[in-house]
Amino acid sequence: MARPTPLSGFPEWLPDGRVVEQHVLDTLRRTFELHGFAGIETRAVEPLDQLLRKGETSKEVYVLRRLQEEAGEGEPARAAQLGLHFDLTVPFARYVLENAGHLAFPFRRYQIQKVWRGERPQDGRFREFAQADIDVVGAGELPYHYEVDLPLVMAEALGALREIGLPPVRVLVNNRRVAEGFYRGLRLTDVDAVLRSIDKLDKIGPDAVADLLVAEAGATPEQARACLDLAAISGGDAGVVDRVRSLAAAHGVESELMEQGLAELRQLVEAAAVRAPGVVVADLKIARGLDYYTGSVYETVLVGHEQLGSICSGGRYDTLASDGNQTYPGVGLSIGVSRLVSRLLSAGLVRATRGVPSAVLVAVTSEESRPQSDAVATALRARGVPVEVAPTAAKFGKQIKHADRRGIPFVWFPGEDGDQVKDIRSGEQVAADAGSWAPPAEDLWPRVVPAEG
Amino acid sequence: MARPTPLSGFPEWLPDGRVVEQHVLDTLRRTFELHGFAGIETRAVEPLDQLLRKGETSKEVYVLRRLQEEAGEGEPARAAQLGLHFDLTVPFARYVLENAGHLAFPFRRYQIQKVWRGERPQDGRFREFAQADIDVVGAGELPYHYEVDLPLVMAEALGALREIGLPPVRVLVNNRRVAEGFYRGLRLTDVDAVLRSIDKLDKIGPDAVADLLVAEAGATPEQARACLDLAAISGGDAGVVDRVRSLAAAHGVESELMEQGLAELRQLVEAAAVRAPGVVVADLKIARGLDYYTGSVYETVLVGHEQLGSICSGGRYDTLASDGNQTYPGVGLSIGVSRLVSRLLSAGLVRATRGVPSAVLVAVTSEESRPQSDAVATALRARGVPVEVAPTAAKFGKQIKHADRRGIPFVWFPGEDGDQVKDIRSGEQVAADAGSWAPPAEDLWPRVVPAEG
Repeated sequence: MARPTPLSGFPEWLPDGRVVEQHVLDTLRRTFELHGFAGIETRAVEPLDQLLRKGETSKEVYVLRRLQEEAGEGEPARAAQLGLHFDLTVPFARYVLENAGHLAFPFRRYQIQKVWRGERPQDGRFREFAQADIDVVGAGELPYHYEVDLPLVMAEALGALREIGLPPVRVLVNNRRVAEGFYRGLRLTDVDAVLRSIDKLDKIGPDAVADLLVAEAGATPEQARACLDLAAISGGDAGVVDRVRSLAAAHGVESELMEQGLAELRQLVEAAAVRAPGVVVADLKIARGLDYYTGSVYETVLVGHEQLGSICSGGRYDTLASDGNQTYPGVGLSIGVSRLVSRLLSAGLVRATRGVPSAVLVAVTSEESRPQSDAVATALRARGVPVEVAPTAAKFGKQIKHADRRGIPFVWFPGEDGDQVKDIRSGEQVAADAGSWAPPAEDLWPRVVPAEG
Repeated sequence: MARPTPLSGFPEWLPDGRVVEQHVLDTLRRTFELHGFAGIETRAVEPLDQLLRKGETSKEVYVLRRLQEEAGEGEPARAAQLGLHFDLTVPFARYVLENAGHLAFPFRRYQIQKVWRGERPQDGRFREFAQADIDVVGAGELPYHYEVDLPLVMAEALGALREIGLPPVRVLVNNRRVAEGFYRGLRLTDVDAVLRSIDKLDKIGPDAVADLLVAEAGATPEQARACLDLAAISGGDAGVVDRVRSLAAAHGVESELMEQGLAELRQLVEAAAVRAPGVVVADLKIARGLDYYTGSVYETVLVGHEQLGSICSGGRYDTLASDGNQTYPGVGLSIGVSRLVSRLLSAGLVRATRGVPSAVLVAVTSEESRPQSDAVATALRARGVPVEVAPTAAKFGKQIKHADRRGIPFVWFPGEDGDQVKDIRSGEQVAADAGSWAPPAEDLWPRVVPAEG
């Protein structure tokens, strides 16, 4: 077998990269659990017809078939075909319907799993990647305050990563009702076309968007200008709401829907300013997702790295799921973990202090005395110290080199007249007892720290 | 959308089942890390030709294709096709080859991931399930003592689950060299056919196996009897080795290969008896895996539940991977986690104390005072207490019922004259301060405990 090459779009980390990813996952999990989100996992596959309910995603789905089906079973009916999930929302909605009788609503869950998209792998686009989602779903109704809570939970989870070097985050929020109410108040009826045009603002600039609005959303130049003026509004306090109202008044827009959205937006911005000052900013140009979310919509950028785009997005669905009798409204956000970790690593923002768990390598004096080294390791592990025993009874210099190559900070030498332990970074060596010695807390487990320089 | 039904072979747990699974995974991870195994993850897919190198598994593979390939791209060449991995060994071998220049050998890793097999789902057989693997792999060579170490690490990891109600485990070991040396010494040349027959012992009994050995492995009745006599030998000390030697002598078997295997088996049993008394037992009828492992082979049963079969299996490969220049011998074991958790749950052996992380529900007196409840929650979380805030300012009785339905043990009542917290199990209610109160340690997080009765 020749040396294999990586598959484009399917990222894998070396052990020290995995330490970083695991730290990120553990940190997210802890924050989610502190907020009472139950962890669930769903199967990786869903019936293909469920995955394809939204046509736009159809190109991205990986379809499965059992290899033996090739040998004559024929193509199964589409309804029986399975595909890999491309997000965690579709499977969660299905899980809620399937288990509704066993869940207490509002049901809050987090879910950290791989998802797959058969897209052409491009810069930062993966075909397999981990997502970390939180959602709250209600049975029949879901109070608005969850639209305030959930982005703040995500901001807190991402904020907990600042200690390893993640830049601060800013959550940008918009509201479907504000946008739709404003556009309809302007007498623009193709709301989705307006949103699609506005979504291109960062890419093509306001003049080209104005042209698009005229060409594709049936806007007059004046209507297009009003849409662009709305998109230009942003801010972290309730002044935003006043500016939208002034703009609406200037264009003769009157809309109950807009007023409802503005009341929500005000509540979100005001509550967030109390609970997490400076984190949440209303930004009326956020259009992505407004076509399928029904209330708040969120994007999250790293301050100073805005050009990387949103690392955590989501919003409110009035109908996350429905079984005909009951609808289940929901609100949630999703972090693209692999993308985030990939950026942290490739930008050299963070590093792991080592790639192996072991804090100590126990040296082996001779193969006959290996049981003595094993006993030291057992004693240290019993007190929670991660340890491995040297692979061979090589010369001590070679055993130390083995520890060094693996990034293990301490080497333990069992001795007939008592044991010694050496910090191979400083060279300091002291007498030690396996029943009481422990490494300094910062050396006990691998840590993730901001990379220098 | 009608209420969906579960997909056979794709298990999912309700939140309290997931608490059990997560506890099992966390416990395994901790033991593996205490032993210096680095956690890695590999992508879910491998090139199909890699997955099919062993023909026997070909029926089990799920092949992927992008949905858009249906629309005219045509069938990709087999070499370009991808399949879902059906174990963690094939991807690990590929990972080692791909990253050999960046790894320090012997390289020890654990890997906990889902795998997929397109088998007909049967009793206890899943199409998607989690495995937890540990392996040590060397570059060119790998000392024998790892064949002693690794089953003991697994026994320790599974032993750490006894506190939640997992029965004690017994690791059954055999050695390819003993079996092959013995059979060849008997002048049986089709070793794999002998192993396949012996593997059926538990199912069809010794007489039928004797017939099989004659019919399929070309044995005389006397040779068949000798094979069955070997398979009948088992024991937890070095006496096993003597009994194999006596049997061999009785049949005029002389084999260097067998002697090498016996020396290994003796070392394993003796070292294990010191490090984990009573856990490891030599069992010469273990045949599964002996056809592809090259040294030790392991199966693990739950004492008192032997009929459930092996829950953790593995062995030694002289060539886990090879790139033409270098071979990488390895030894490892794999736990079928989903199967184990499924049995723990369905047999009613364990239960989670609750299905949600929250220890406390903070009641909301009125929607206007929600910020006060949010502030209590924030203060408690800052000290590591998992908390959620009531969904609505319903009557307190209804809020308590909401906590009860979710299994949350404490309800917090913010008050103008000081707060109170109620243990809703006992009804006891006391004054409390969010800056200092904490639940009893056993109520802080959901725990997994042996189920009663």
